[in-house]
Amino acid sequence: MGKGLLIVLSGPSGVGKGTVCNELRRRLPDLVYSVSATTRNPRLGEENGVNYFFKSREQFEEMIANDQLLEYAEYVGNYYGTPRDFVEATLQSGKDIILEIEVQGALKVKSKFPEGIFVFLLPPSLDELKGRIVGRGTENQATIDHRMSVAADEIGLMENYDYAVVNDEIDQACHRIQSIIVAEHCKIRPRCEEVAAR
Amino acid sequence: MGKGLLIVLSGPSGVGKGTVCNELRRRLPDLVYSVSATTRNPRLGEENGVNYFFKSREQFEEMIANDQLLEYAEYVGNYYGTPRDFVEATLQSGKDIILEIEVQGALKVKSKFPEGIFVFLLPPSLDELKGRIVGRGTENQATIDHRMSVAADEIGLMENYDYAVVNDEIDQACHRIQSIIVAEHCKIRPRCEEVAAR
Repeated sequence: MGKGLLIVLSGPSGVGKGTVCNELRRRLPDLVYSVSATTRNPRLGEENGVNYFFKSREQFEEMIANDQLLEYAEYVGNYYGTPRDFVEATLQSGKDIILEIEVQGALKVKSKFPEGIFVFLLPPSLDELKGRIVGRGTENQATIDHRMSVAADEIGLMENYDYAVVNDEIDQACHRIQSIIVAEHCKIRPRCEEVAAR
Repeated sequence: MGKGLLIVLSGPSGVGKGTVCNELRRRLPDLVYSVSATTRNPRLGEENGVNYFFKSREQFEEMIANDQLLEYAEYVGNYYGTPRDFVEATLQSGKDIILEIEVQGALKVKSKFPEGIFVFLLPPSLDELKGRIVGRGTENQATIDHRMSVAADEIGLMENYDYAVVNDEIDQACHRIQSIIVAEHCKIRPRCEEVAAR
């Protein structure tokens, strides 16, 4: 058995990353979910190591200093990040791991872990994405305009990714990502002595 | 709709290329089969343009001179080759095309058409391959030894391919190749303006 693969699932806000990620985990019970570290307090029912790795600010800053995070960001006064150890231990055990993350975070992961498989989830069109954001009914016009402009910029960063998957239908989108995972396991990489020696 | 993909299915003799290729064509009715050109005479029931493009020796040598073949070889006094026009017209029409070919031929195709997807079909083991060759019951020991040695050399050339697919079970092997085709259609290539512009 070879090493597992890190699948980075990313794309603009509103494209449906979370829904697709959950459906993939349902279909692929062996696919491990990359658990984030955070300094925010646990909410009711949240478990350490399942929903998040809960850390104190000091612990988190030590992880930053020791380069133990593949990426991190501060959001509304709390840190969020991707612990490198958990990803690497999973891969070493031969299992695949999926990381669901926004575009800036994915690009940071790529700089530290270029051997990941970077999948960009696309809306069928920008109009469709707008419909989804408006449909939530929680945003005012200025916020919608801002989010659409951010999404357009993010789509412009797609060339840094390995694959583009259109999220037209969840079933089709998951099928495409599952195919990408199967194909990547068949890929011949520079070091493939173990396969050649069969 | 983008351009189609050329899928080159190759591997050592006896690995089951033909069986896998036929099953893929059955599952994927839109997958076009790359028809070879040959100077040998048509056999009963063979149709020009379906089984082969039947050519005179002069016509074939003109195709060679005009670089109209992605590869060719002479075998028992007859030429066999892959017409470039048929492949390119199929790809331009947006359809995928599959070329089933032995290892040396695949490497020639790669030199002329590096954008193809090169899939190496592997036996589960060399012992298994030997079993398949012996099982045909048509070969003497010297031939078997020779074919096994050729197969081992060919497996050594696998690093020139994009993907390795183990033909342990036809269903699994086809599923892997179908996944490779889906994944390759999602791949972000240097020129993907039409996707970025969605």
